[in-house]
Amino acid sequence: MSNPEPAAQPPPQVSHRGRSAAPIASSNAEGEEVPEFDSFGIIGPRGPPPLREFLDIWDVNMLRRPDEVNTPQHSTHLYASDHLIVRRGQEFQLKVTFDRPYKPSDDQFAVEFVIGGSPQYSKGTYIPVSVAKDRQSPWAGRVVDSTDNVVTVGITPAPDCIVGKWRTYVAVVTPYGIRRTRRDESRDLYVLFNAWATGDSVFLDDADEREECVLNEVGVIYHGAYDDMSERPWNFGQFDYGVLDACLFIMDKAAMPITNRGDAIKVARKASAMLNSHDDDGVLVGNWSGDYTYGVAPTSWTGSTEILLNYSSSKTPVCYAQCWVYAAVFNTFLRCLGIPARVVTNFFSAHDNDGNLKTDVILDENGRIDKHRTKDSIWNYHCWNECYMSRPDLPQGFGGWQAVDATPQETSDGIYRCGPASVQAIKHGQICFPFDAPFLFAEVNSDVVFYSRNPRDGTLEPVKVNSSHVGRMVVTKVPGQDARRDITDQYKFPEGSPEERTVLEKAEEYGCHREKATPPEADVELDMPLMEVRVGDDFELKLEFNNTSDQARTVDVYVSGNVVYYTGVTSSEFLFKTPRVILDPKKGRRTKHILSHLCVHSQDYMRKLVEQANLHFIATGKVKETGQIITSMRVVTLHTPKLSVEVSGLAKVSEEMMVTVEFTNPFKFNLEDVYVRVEGPGVMPPKYKHYSLITAGSSLTWTEGVTPRRAGPTKLMASLDCAALRQVYGQAQLTVKP
Amino acid sequence: MSNPEPAAQPPPQVSHRGRSAAPIASSNAEGEEVPEFDSFGIIGPRGPPPLREFLDIWDVNMLRRPDEVNTPQHSTHLYASDHLIVRRGQEFQLKVTFDRPYKPSDDQFAVEFVIGGSPQYSKGTYIPVSVAKDRQSPWAGRVVDSTDNVVTVGITPAPDCIVGKWRTYVAVVTPYGIRRTRRDESRDLYVLFNAWATGDSVFLDDADEREECVLNEVGVIYHGAYDDMSERPWNFGQFDYGVLDACLFIMDKAAMPITNRGDAIKVARKASAMLNSHDDDGVLVGNWSGDYTYGVAPTSWTGSTEILLNYSSSKTPVCYAQCWVYAAVFNTFLRCLGIPARVVTNFFSAHDNDGNLKTDVILDENGRIDKHRTKDSIWNYHCWNECYMSRPDLPQGFGGWQAVDATPQETSDGIYRCGPASVQAIKHGQICFPFDAPFLFAEVNSDVVFYSRNPRDGTLEPVKVNSSHVGRMVVTKVPGQDARRDITDQYKFPEGSPEERTVLEKAEEYGCHREKATPPEADVELDMPLMEVRVGDDFELKLEFNNTSDQARTVDVYVSGNVVYYTGVTSSEFLFKTPRVILDPKKGRRTKHILSHLCVHSQDYMRKLVEQANLHFIATGKVKETGQIITSMRVVTLHTPKLSVEVSGLAKVSEEMMVTVEFTNPFKFNLEDVYVRVEGPGVMPPKYKHYSLITAGSSLTWTEGVTPRRAGPTKLMASLDCAALRQVYGQAQLTVKP
Repeated sequence: MSNPEPAAQPPPQVSHRGRSAAPIASSNAEGEEVPEFDSFGIIGPRGPPPLREFLDIWDVNMLRRPDEVNTPQHSTHLYASDHLIVRRGQEFQLKVTFDRPYKPSDDQFAVEFVIGGSPQYSKGTYIPVSVAKDRQSPWAGRVVDSTDNVVTVGITPAPDCIVGKWRTYVAVVTPYGIRRTRRDESRDLYVLFNAWATGDSVFLDDADEREECVLNEVGVIYHGAYDDMSERPWNFGQFDYGVLDACLFIMDKAAMPITNRGDAIKVARKASAMLNSHDDDGVLVGNWSGDYTYGVAPTSWTGSTEILLNYSSSKTPVCYAQCWVYAAVFNTFLRCLGIPARVVTNFFSAHDNDGNLKTDVILDENGRIDKHRTKDSIWNYHCWNECYMSRPDLPQGFGGWQAVDATPQETSDGIYRCGPASVQAIKHGQICFPFDAPFLFAEVNSDVVFYSRNPRDGTLEPVKVNSSHVGRMVVTKVPGQDARRDITDQYKFPEGSPEERTVLEKAEEYGCHREKATPPEADVELDMPLMEVRVGDDFELKLEFNNTSDQARTVDVYVSGNVVYYTGVTSSEFLFKTPRVILDPKKGRRTKHILSHLCVHSQDYMRKLVEQANLHFIATGKVKETGQIITSMRVVTLHTPKLSVEVSGLAKVSEEMMVTVEFTNPFKFNLEDVYVRVEGPGVMPPKYKHYSLITAGSSLTWTEGVTPRRAGPTKLMASLDCAALRQVYGQAQLTVKP
Repeated sequence: MSNPEPAAQPPPQVSHRGRSAAPIASSNAEGEEVPEFDSFGIIGPRGPPPLREFLDIWDVNMLRRPDEVNTPQHSTHLYASDHLIVRRGQEFQLKVTFDRPYKPSDDQFAVEFVIGGSPQYSKGTYIPVSVAKDRQSPWAGRVVDSTDNVVTVGITPAPDCIVGKWRTYVAVVTPYGIRRTRRDESRDLYVLFNAWATGDSVFLDDADEREECVLNEVGVIYHGAYDDMSERPWNFGQFDYGVLDACLFIMDKAAMPITNRGDAIKVARKASAMLNSHDDDGVLVGNWSGDYTYGVAPTSWTGSTEILLNYSSSKTPVCYAQCWVYAAVFNTFLRCLGIPARVVTNFFSAHDNDGNLKTDVILDENGRIDKHRTKDSIWNYHCWNECYMSRPDLPQGFGGWQAVDATPQETSDGIYRCGPASVQAIKHGQICFPFDAPFLFAEVNSDVVFYSRNPRDGTLEPVKVNSSHVGRMVVTKVPGQDARRDITDQYKFPEGSPEERTVLEKAEEYGCHREKATPPEADVELDMPLMEVRVGDDFELKLEFNNTSDQARTVDVYVSGNVVYYTGVTSSEFLFKTPRVILDPKKGRRTKHILSHLCVHSQDYMRKLVEQANLHFIATGKVKETGQIITSMRVVTLHTPKLSVEVSGLAKVSEEMMVTVEFTNPFKFNLEDVYVRVEGPGVMPPKYKHYSLITAGSSLTWTEGVTPRRAGPTKLMASLDCAALRQVYGQAQLTVKP
């Protein structure tokens, strides 16, 4: 049969012929260029005059050196780049040298800026800037100074113009037509978002936050447990050589229409999709498996630079990331383009529930966890980003900080991206607005619901609802200091406040499903107090009972200790005890009963440790007299030994100094296949060393000579990483003298 | 160096280990099944009794035959399927035969329904239904009748339950544990959305629309021009054998989480992405190029069945589609799953402008179109779908018809899908709500802006704004009749009404950009009146001038005639004239001046015709005295010859009858490589024939014997398609007797 089956052929590429007149430019790369001569096709009124009469251009100087006028005024002096980098909505200057003095009365010239292929005036990709008083151009232009043959031109890119790499031309009008300068790469101009300009959608009216969220290269990412936090130092490196181009490449790789790139909302949303490799060959491959043989362990990275440069050079996704790596690199991307951004950490983050506000724990008849049927998990912590921008696409009041998340969660509108979602909207349950607000709302507001399962017909009965566990605390770094800031109140109203109830009801109106049942509170309370434990220690697990009734109570308790990934997924159980506890009736003041003979021996858990070394204890039980269920959860973050980073010699620009990283293996066992990494913005690029063996008790010392290239305060950050021991970090502060 | 560069390795697949406890089921296929015996692990109170005492199951009858109780009540009797198909939120019955009469007092059994892998009660993928009065299950169950050993059970799936293919079990409780029936495919149950059930989110409270938008298999798709419309008959075929499975396969192929498949919003959104092959190997490959060598020409299809069955069997995208094919197959998908849906056509549809409400036409100094710089185009028409559902994710008032579009437009939130967007929200400019409302708003509300370009500095000055051209008319089929219905007022308020202004201002608040300038109206009007022309005709193009001023006017007019794709993209210019017109001053009543000596000869355009045979005339000019610009546009749809379809013999179920398709080539040239297709729901499956040559003036006759398999009114639809002549359609009505 001559009419072929579709299956018989590979589906051909979609042709644009007949479909759209011009392909939409989706790259900073140049396409069809503006012609060097644009004929008017007519002869001037006075007939052909001698060419000499018209301006001839000798030179165009972009004034791009840090000691010249532009970069300090635009706070772009920190970028390591060969090109002029400015922020939109703010004037910059360039010098044009002609063959003779410029006569405003007779001479007519324009500075032209072009981005992407097939530039069009009406699409904002071709911008002619006239300096003549009478004409007004989309970007304001003026003559700042004109001496001898040199004209200094002031140009103010529109505060909503396209962000990216522009090409610069100067055009002179002759009676025959327009004569332009040749294409010259050195005149390429990078235009960024401008948090300093009131007209820009990312304007941030707080000097400290602006400094921190746009200009700070070093940061701290919090992890561990809300009541026992650990820190990761991070080098965002947004000013490092090549990073800006890498960020633009990410949008080019996504084939993002150039005309959308002035819109901070679209840029942030696109990036949240592109930072992960899912469905678009984006920047980072996620891996939570513990096996990082074919790449760098997520816990091993100390900064974003290496990752972004790898991606833009190899053009293939970089291995491997977990949530804080996604968030950190995303942060670099946003700050690099001039969008104020910060990394936030949410402790006990519900996930995958796509607007379902429940995380289910299934217990059997006796109150013991049914591991087979309990499929949900709660992340001990989850990192995402906030970026600051107005939201013209939403009603008043939802501008400001917007949550975005590049970690590939299962379900965010079906593909792997999330946000921007207005934090204000999340706080007030106004989750009907784009993008992905219900998903983020669930991450901080879900309930943990304990069900008791009836084996006879498989039905589940809710026996306890814990509404304060998830979203226990949201933190970020304080601007200008290495201190943390609790911003939970920006996401939620206080636990149990009337506002909180209203918000949850509002969210339900928008389709968030909650557990309606409110099982009676047990009259016995169970708690596991905080313990600070170092990796390799033996310790005692405490159970604190509190009988609030007037009768004695008998409780059969199931205590389970597990090694878990930070995603809350259980790796293996290393402890299981089923003590029976008899509690005296409460008299006068409450009677605390403390059960503390549960010894945890390091050899029980050390063999089973997975990265991030979290021990997860859950105690559940049934009160014999009342049949009520009691539960308690405790995450113990095992503290890792420190890595020492020291600097010797005078820290001075262009003068060599010494950096020493030291570590001693405190364990009774050997560490094998160890990677040590160190880097410092302005001081040293990312470097690492591999040690095949660090025997028990022995030490390593690594000394490097480095030469600071920039003055000012900075940090050196180091990490040590091997299968048996991860997230060992160290850092050193220093101030480089000019 | 032993630490490999990411570039050195292919990025490994993301592992779920440590990432999530259980993979999220994303297919109807079975995974880990419920066990045949679920032990309680304890001995019953009375010690082990003889098994005989407990119910033994002999048979489970799903009552799935059309003459049995279920399918007529659920309006699913039309589906050609071996399984029971019901709609959720409405009771269906099944019969369980035991080894002895059922004793409610002692016996305990449950009917269990399971979907996807690793079924979970709390995720709604494992549903045990108890018939006992005291227990209530997520799906209501009751004993309808119990005679001898046979119990008739009534089951009502929850009105928000997962839509798809469920597996059925019957479980009996014994003291040892639960005994289940073996897996039996014949008991699989398809649960659909239910437009008849008040509790369902797709409930449609209008019997006629419900009948049309869920149950009607044949439809009409409008195209051509708003004032000279053509029709395409289409066989949606949602009840044809295998189509329902193909629709479920589409969601499986998209790996759509099974837990989302009860949500009509998510299902419609996912499908809008999956119906096109872009970024997800979806159903249809778009092709607007005119070259369809490796597949079926979009104009050749007569129904959806062939496309969907091809896709589900080959699992690769089907070639080729243009907008009405996407809309028609999407319509089949929605109706097949029980979501009320219809195809709408928007005449003069702006596209690709992503919330920018302007389509730019650039004129040179003399008022002639600058083809090189005019890059935008307006589709002569564009088809999308509307589906009916409540919008719990939005504030009150935005439920009802939702616009969805599966045609891969350039920019809809960055990927190829669009909607659902509330039509109410579009009409009122409330485009801040998901999904993609700004995009759809622009398709019906954009302005056509004519710019005059200043060659000296490249700036553009708006000289005319046409705000009534785009979104000229939106139509769909009238329920129950082959007539069209103008639903423009559901998308927009009347042109020039105060409400219209308010809406446009509201939309601008949400970031839609419009042309602010309002250039003065010219005092000379230009119009090109409607012409009805058949392919191959010569005709005269009329230009109607109207001088509303008291002085004489001189106009230099540029008339350009082009063959265009229906996407508005110009293929080639076949006519260009530049008449000068002198207009007398207006006296008393207006003076019409008609210019009608512009002859269009068929040989000028025939050679250049592309599919859909649209001639696009645009006349622009400059009034000498005032410098004002006048413009007018006219699309001439060339009418194609008809295809005759005739039926002979008695149309009776299971009795052969004859279908004859006839066509005569009316042209002076030969038609080569011609495909003729015919199909009819319930009468004949899609068939086609290839004719290598139909010489000028000659005829073809194709007669087929067919055997109707279903009684009732239906249609036979035929198309004829070849490179030189496309969209030739014919149809025949008939009523098949039982």
